[in-house]
Amino acid sequence: MARVYNFAAGPANLPEEVLKEAAEEMLDYKGTGMSVMEMSHRSKAFDAIIKEAEQDLRDLYGISDDYAVMFLQGGASTQFAAIPMNLMKSGKADYIVTGNWSNKAYKEAQMYGDITLVANTKDKNYTYIPDLDSLEYSDDADYLYVCWNETIHGTTYRQIPPTKANIVADVSSCFLSEPMDISKFGVVYGGAQKNIGPAGVVVAIVRKDLISDEVMAGTPTMLKWKTQMENDSMYNTPPCYAIYICGKVFKWIKSIGGLEAMKERNEKKAAILYDFLDKSEMFKSTVEKKDRSLMNVPFVTGDDALDKEFIAAATAAGLVELKGHRSVGGMRASIYNAMPIEGVEKLVAFMEEFEKAHK
Amino acid sequence: MARVYNFAAGPANLPEEVLKEAAEEMLDYKGTGMSVMEMSHRSKAFDAIIKEAEQDLRDLYGISDDYAVMFLQGGASTQFAAIPMNLMKSGKADYIVTGNWSNKAYKEAQMYGDITLVANTKDKNYTYIPDLDSLEYSDDADYLYVCWNETIHGTTYRQIPPTKANIVADVSSCFLSEPMDISKFGVVYGGAQKNIGPAGVVVAIVRKDLISDEVMAGTPTMLKWKTQMENDSMYNTPPCYAIYICGKVFKWIKSIGGLEAMKERNEKKAAILYDFLDKSEMFKSTVEKKDRSLMNVPFVTGDDALDKEFIAAATAAGLVELKGHRSVGGMRASIYNAMPIEGVEKLVAFMEEFEKAHK
Repeated sequence: MARVYNFAAGPANLPEEVLKEAAEEMLDYKGTGMSVMEMSHRSKAFDAIIKEAEQDLRDLYGISDDYAVMFLQGGASTQFAAIPMNLMKSGKADYIVTGNWSNKAYKEAQMYGDITLVANTKDKNYTYIPDLDSLEYSDDADYLYVCWNETIHGTTYRQIPPTKANIVADVSSCFLSEPMDISKFGVVYGGAQKNIGPAGVVVAIVRKDLISDEVMAGTPTMLKWKTQMENDSMYNTPPCYAIYICGKVFKWIKSIGGLEAMKERNEKKAAILYDFLDKSEMFKSTVEKKDRSLMNVPFVTGDDALDKEFIAAATAAGLVELKGHRSVGGMRASIYNAMPIEGVEKLVAFMEEFEKAHK
Repeated sequence: MARVYNFAAGPANLPEEVLKEAAEEMLDYKGTGMSVMEMSHRSKAFDAIIKEAEQDLRDLYGISDDYAVMFLQGGASTQFAAIPMNLMKSGKADYIVTGNWSNKAYKEAQMYGDITLVANTKDKNYTYIPDLDSLEYSDDADYLYVCWNETIHGTTYRQIPPTKANIVADVSSCFLSEPMDISKFGVVYGGAQKNIGPAGVVVAIVRKDLISDEVMAGTPTMLKWKTQMENDSMYNTPPCYAIYICGKVFKWIKSIGGLEAMKERNEKKAAILYDFLDKSEMFKSTVEKKDRSLMNVPFVTGDDALDKEFIAAATAAGLVELKGHRSVGGMRASIYNAMPIEGVEKLVAFMEEFEKAHK
């Protein structure tokens, strides 16, 4: 079969160039006579891979030496526990819940301390980001937690919350999709499997002064950031192959011009889709205009049977994984960095045809 | 470069057939139009991959339905904490320390309960397995922990310790190297990156009655086995690509005749190397005969400069990653499942030549 246009929310499409290189290097990585999968994590070749990946990520976001960059395991879901375990000193934290992912993080944190729910947008089924200037942040919170882009609901932050606390942001579904001023955050972290690589690795960018031996009693050694920072993410065997693919994705982003170019490309793709949704009589966006994600675009017809028919027809046309999450229904097009503009154009053309045919 | 013979302790060599298939399927897995790396973990295609991998593993070891098979993240090192967190009810456990890995597990467990060190073979630098029949096991331990094969020191258990407690065995470096009666254990688990796949996934085989909601306070949701079992290892996104490669390795083991055939092959390889070591005047095994691992073979000349010269010459001849762990010194040949007999024959021929040239 030809390659499809894959609108999955994650794991998601990767740049074809990256996959081709990986296939070519599978039996012999750069004359080492072995695959990266077979390579000792203590070898010179892998050391170069992980160091280059870190440096390329630092270059892309402009991350200063005040921050550690760590390649971790266990997904963002493991960090939902690691974050309070590492950051809670006063035992208090603020959380903003704007969807399933921030809600999961909020629930996990309640095991570890006294959590203030600063805002919750469940009242409108998580279709918006609250007015950040009018929220009441705690004076004594160790941190404020936000999910910068909610994969399921298709919302994104466009402003830094005006809190005095350190901000922890889950960027799993918008990682490297546009420039971000890391210096405004305490922790920026995310799973790789949407925008930067395969499932199995989490990248955590943490301001070094927040990393210490002073963690909650009972924190597993592996979840302690100090362990990971001091061992350059190699306290135990890291997920080498996933890191290698992330490194290739970082180089691919550099090759197309870095994060400014990435943002421009992503805005163009999103505009094609949102513009169509705003003029269509059949398909509607579910998210408030000001808060729409560039990455995840949920949309509905309002008719479940029609949604189903559309998804089946699109799949047959090579536009796959468009089914929306069960909590939103309808459709969702995830148009991450690796989705080419042609993919979005084909999707919109297909939607236009479908709408005409069903008038 | 041609493929080398890779004696790394892990990540380690994989069957060439597996790598070739993976390379061929990189851009289009079985007509899905995408790589397994790009595939939703909720897709039918991935569901088939993970279910087949589990079934093949069950077939190979003969694992009954009384046991859960889980694909986890964070390496064995994360399980060092998860094991006490999940299993400690009375707050007591027995540990046998036979090397670095069981020692790490022992140290981590001390954070969570009252641990009895039943035996420690450090007195002879971990070169043997203690006499299991003469040890004093606790009457009230929740479990006995052992590392079945110590990667660094090259020892292996050949007898089930006669304790009344449930036995937890780390089999990272001997996973699927020979048949094992899983029904004698409470937990059999290990990182994939030595014998069964790439780094980034841990397989845990746990008797279901040991899995419950009754875990230690503060156990992260992701480390709770009940979470993982109930969600078929997909509470969050699993390390899909690593699981896919493991599945291919399981099929490869089946194709060569299963674990009896694997054992025969591994015994043959180990015998070639140990027989030579026992007759060589230059190279010596460091491990007591009865306790020698089939997988990891440390050896020394007794002369550091000569060790170095040997390692450099072997590397130049395409026999790579033979340097021993710093705590043992000398050399170590890890001859996991995927190492062909020719690799061991070439190594021994090279050692013979080297010895002759240095008489």
